[in-house]
Amino acid sequence: MSLTVYLSGEIHTDWREQIEQGAKDACLDIQFTRPVTDHAASDAAGDLLGEEDKQFWRDHKSAKVNAIRIKTLLEQADVAVVRFGDKYKQWNAAFDAGYCAALGTPYITLHDEGLIHPLKEVDAAAMAWATTPEQVVGILKHVTRD
Amino acid sequence: MSLTVYLSGEIHTDWREQIEQGAKDACLDIQFTRPVTDHAASDAAGDLLGEEDKQFWRDHKSAKVNAIRIKTLLEQADVAVVRFGDKYKQWNAAFDAGYCAALGTPYITLHDEGLIHPLKEVDAAAMAWATTPEQVVGILKHVTRD
Amino acid sequence: MSLTVYLSGEIHTDWREQIEQGAKDACLDIQFTRPVTDHAASDAAGDLLGEEDKQFWRDHKSAKVNAIRIKTLLEQADVAVVRFGDKYKQWNAAFDAGYCAALGTPYITLHDEGLIHPLKEVDAAAMAWATTPEQVVGILKHVTRD
Amino acid sequence: MSLTVYLSGEIHTDWREQIEQGAKDACLDIQFTRPVTDHAASDAAGDLLGEEDKQFWRDHKSAKVNAIRIKTLLEQADVAVVRFGDKYKQWNAAFDAGYCAALGTPYITLHDEGLIHPLKEVDAAAMAWATTPEQVVGILKHVTRD
Amino acid sequence: MSLTVYLSGEIHTDWREQIEQGAKDACLDIQFTRPVTDHAASDAAGDLLGEEDKQFWRDHKSAKVNAIRIKTLLEQADVAVVRFGDKYKQWNAAFDAGYCAALGTPYITLHDEGLIHPLKEVDAAAMAWATTPEQVVGILKHVTRD
Amino acid sequence: MSLTVYLSGEIHTDWREQIEQGAKDACLDIQFTRPVTDHAASDAAGDLLGEEDKQFWRDHKSAKVNAIRIKTLLEQADVAVVRFGDKYKQWNAAFDAGYCAALGTPYITLHDEGLIHPLKEVDAAAMAWATTPEQVVGILKHVTRD
Amino acid sequence: MSLTVYLSGEIHTDWREQIEQGAKDACLDIQFTRPVTDHAASDAAGDLLGEEDKQFWRDHKSAKVNAIRIKTLLEQADVAVVRFGDKYKQWNAAFDAGYCAALGTPYITLHDEGLIHPLKEVDAAAMAWATTPEQVVGILKHVTRD
Amino acid sequence: MSLTVYLSGEIHTDWREQIEQGAKDACLDIQFTRPVTDHAASDAAGDLLGEEDKQFWRDHKSAKVNAIRIKTLLEQADVAVVRFGDKYKQWNAAFDAGYCAALGTPYITLHDEGLIHPLKEVDAAAMAWATTPEQVVGILKHVTRD
Repeated sequence: MSLTVYLSGEIHTDWREQIEQGAKDACLDIQFTRPVTDHAASDAAGDLLGEEDKQFWRDHKSAKVNAIRIKTLLEQADVAVVRFGDKYKQWNAAFDAGYCAALGTPYITLHDEGLIHPLKEVDAAAMAWATTPEQVVGILKHVTRD
Repeated sequence: MSLTVYLSGEIHTDWREQIEQGAKDACLDIQFTRPVTDHAASDAAGDLLGEEDKQFWRDHKSAKVNAIRIKTLLEQADVAVVRFGDKYKQWNAAFDAGYCAALGTPYITLHDEGLIHPLKEVDAAAMAWATTPEQVVGILKHVTRD
Repeated sequence: MSLTVYLSGEIHTDWREQIEQGAKDACLDIQFTRPVTDHAASDAAGDLLGEEDKQFWRDHKSAKVNAIRIKTLLEQADVAVVRFGDKYKQWNAAFDAGYCAALGTPYITLHDEGLIHPLKEVDAAAMAWATTPEQVVGILKHVTRD
Repeated sequence: MSLTVYLSGEIHTDWREQIEQGAKDACLDIQFTRPVTDHAASDAAGDLLGEEDKQFWRDHKSAKVNAIRIKTLLEQADVAVVRFGDKYKQWNAAFDAGYCAALGTPYITLHDEGLIHPLKEVDAAAMAWATTPEQVVGILKHVTRD
Repeated sequence: MSLTVYLSGEIHTDWREQIEQGAKDACLDIQFTRPVTDHAASDAAGDLLGEEDKQFWRDHKSAKVNAIRIKTLLEQADVAVVRFGDKYKQWNAAFDAGYCAALGTPYITLHDEGLIHPLKEVDAAAMAWATTPEQVVGILKHVTRD
Repeated sequence: MSLTVYLSGEIHTDWREQIEQGAKDACLDIQFTRPVTDHAASDAAGDLLGEEDKQFWRDHKSAKVNAIRIKTLLEQADVAVVRFGDKYKQWNAAFDAGYCAALGTPYITLHDEGLIHPLKEVDAAAMAWATTPEQVVGILKHVTRD
Repeated sequence: MSLTVYLSGEIHTDWREQIEQGAKDACLDIQFTRPVTDHAASDAAGDLLGEEDKQFWRDHKSAKVNAIRIKTLLEQADVAVVRFGDKYKQWNAAFDAGYCAALGTPYITLHDEGLIHPLKEVDAAAMAWATTPEQVVGILKHVTRD
Repeated sequence: MSLTVYLSGEIHTDWREQIEQGAKDACLDIQFTRPVTDHAASDAAGDLLGEEDKQFWRDHKSAKVNAIRIKTLLEQADVAVVRFGDKYKQWNAAFDAGYCAALGTPYITLHDEGLIHPLKEVDAAAMAWATTPEQVVGILKHVTRD
């Protein structure tokens, strides 16, 4: 069974690469997709459309250009993995989770035990909560087995 | 013009009451809805279904019981206001925003200038960004004028 | 907050009346709906359309006439309660649960501990599992509180 | 004409293999999909996410992990076959049928004459009732003929 | 239980009035809706928009004006009754039935035994086949009983 | 530009073959689909599921088995062509047109001038009315041109 | 029959008032809705959210605030009337027509003969083309007749 | 990442070719689609269905034949680019933008600074506003980067 899996959230550790490598090692038939994870490129996505004096509009333009990609990939995904790290606000990750919930796209959360309480609404709509990339790979292995 | 407006997010200040009062003072025909904003009651929503040893399952049960209300009200809302304060993770607010975005329900964000960058994806899908409850009332006044 | 709640499943005990009475005692603004729960009338729903020699077609006609009601009420419901008793196959209750799941209508299951394992898929898509009508009323009270 | 057919329900007899073999013998251009049918693996699907003391949560986690697969395959299916055997509760099969009904995915039921009455609601929304795998193959042959 | 029922099809006999009277006599809480059943007015619905030399365009304009009403009422209906008489082509009735089928709106067909074979596809997607207005009233009585 | 085109309606003349041949001659990248057009096979589609004494149930079972194919192909089609000949009731063709209209699938009608008035509602929701297979091919040629 | 009708487009003549008066004179049970038609107020809708140096962002903010109203009213409308005058670009009117077309909401265009060619795509998806407010009232009278 | 991009709007300059060439030069995995951009062929699309005396019906028939293509391609597109030039009414471009907005398909507008004010509603629902084909290519390059 083949699957398209969108990897949403934290961009400061290599959790995406770990999941992709784990899936590859297990020969899973999975196509992984992701947002632009180069932080600087992501923040500058709208700059080619002209300079802005205000931070709000610079961010606004970049976020919308990035959203073209994210929205398209989220709607194509069979499953999403949403990762929350221990730093930053990461509201975009929670936004993606809410988007999946409304679309009916199953998602798996990936976060430490310390975040259980603030993530309870996000976890409540998830199909699984994992604490390590290995567990995510384990779930995907089970889900796609022949 | 009448409107149903869901007030999502922060529960530690009286921004909901300010908006409701402002709308009342302006005689707007708006029905406001909200999640259970009594923090303790919200956290304990699932306790009547039996005790749990693990924090995860206690939170899980409560979050799901609360979600019955939130999901119903979000889908009935014409418009949502999503408030981010300066404390706590508030991932549920971003989750609600993502849910609205996928449903096509217009929403207004309400947050300070200091949160512009981390909220850029949430603001990008919003119809307006306000910094005060008065501004939200101003928008609602314009939107519903005869 | 008002709510429309569909009561699906077992028709041999008075669980519906207990929930309705409990909601009434607590002054909840809830409209309860239900299938035709008169067993004989339900089985004979299609008889006025002409006799059938085969059991399959008699059942088929009656089940379809009943489905006009069930389908309409399920799609109007904000929430469903799906009850499984200790007797009979009750596949129609599980069918209703699956229907709700696909529509995105939140539902609460109501069944004893002894049925946990066979109902795991049905419970997995539910927002809560209750074992008594009192618990269902408790959830509805929380969900609709002002 | 090619078709994707999901085989839902009973996992204790070889009805799936009979249908797949029959379709192969008839050179039908059909891709069959199915849930994880290894009973022990299915029950243990969530175990890699950590141990649970309570049966409910163990079942809950496994059922949700399995649901990632089932939901994805049901939504990709053109047609489903839902099999009810003579043992066990099989509420998950009826749940899948209800899910298909709400999605508008046509499904065929496969069960003995003895189950007509308890399955009347499930059969009422089906496109056909078959009693043998050969009949299912016969229907698929007709449906996909050039 | 209240219901909105659209009465589609044949306009040359008083079957609509019989059903409405029967429902009234039985005190059913049903709102009946219907297309414009004044044949001449229906054919002339577009005439006020200017004359046409070609029959096709005169019919086209009138049919579209009528469709504003029909489409709106079909989408508001909980249930439709689709009547086929023994005269005329009545393709509009079959069109309405197909429209209901795609929307998932349950419908009841009303026609004589002589039309069974040509209506088999229309009946296959119906929830019931009745031969008299009394039977339709009987079904509605059952469906809406308290 | 490639296209999937469903050919619905009359099965007694070779209009489908003419369109397919015309499209082939013009090297159009179109995949044509159709119902089972072998009249006897279509009427007998459900016979393998057991004999029926009543004509209604024989027709019912066959029509539902055929509907598995029709429904699947209609939902996969980019465009439909719906043909009405000068004989028979052809309510299934009008039913397919209504189904397309509700799905938003564009369709072309193919019929003689003599049928303009009874088909006015069906034509009103169509994207084009053609009187010959050559015209249909002409439209498809224009629609898919590079 | 009651109806909700959204009046979209040109804001420089009194066509809305003429239609509303005509409907009132004819005692039609119609609720008319409209965008904010006070030009200055509409252009300034976002000004309360803070000043902008660039015209683009001022317009952007105002257009989005107005869109909260327009989007809500368009989705609540049973029917829309879209008016094109002889001045200005009026792209918002064509935008609303496209929005209705995608939602499946029937709409009527109101424009002079001189605009036939540039409006052909907009008219192609409309249910009627009128040249005077009186004709629109005439259509609404027919559509809602008892 | 691959993408299907529909190029809507102005047909009198070579902006489509510039974007396609730019994407090709950058080796982007994008399939571009477009309406029939041969003006004369587009206007004559319905002529093969018979002559019309009135301009309205000639345009109507052609616009509907063209709409078969446009509707199909818009619904298949991941992203649209909507171009407004400095001549003509171009209401079809705004109509396509409204159609995309209702479908939730992200689109980019391409127009000069002089059109900011009349396009404010169209821009308000867009994901980006570009003034040159190079900027559009730049956005697509960012959106599809690996």
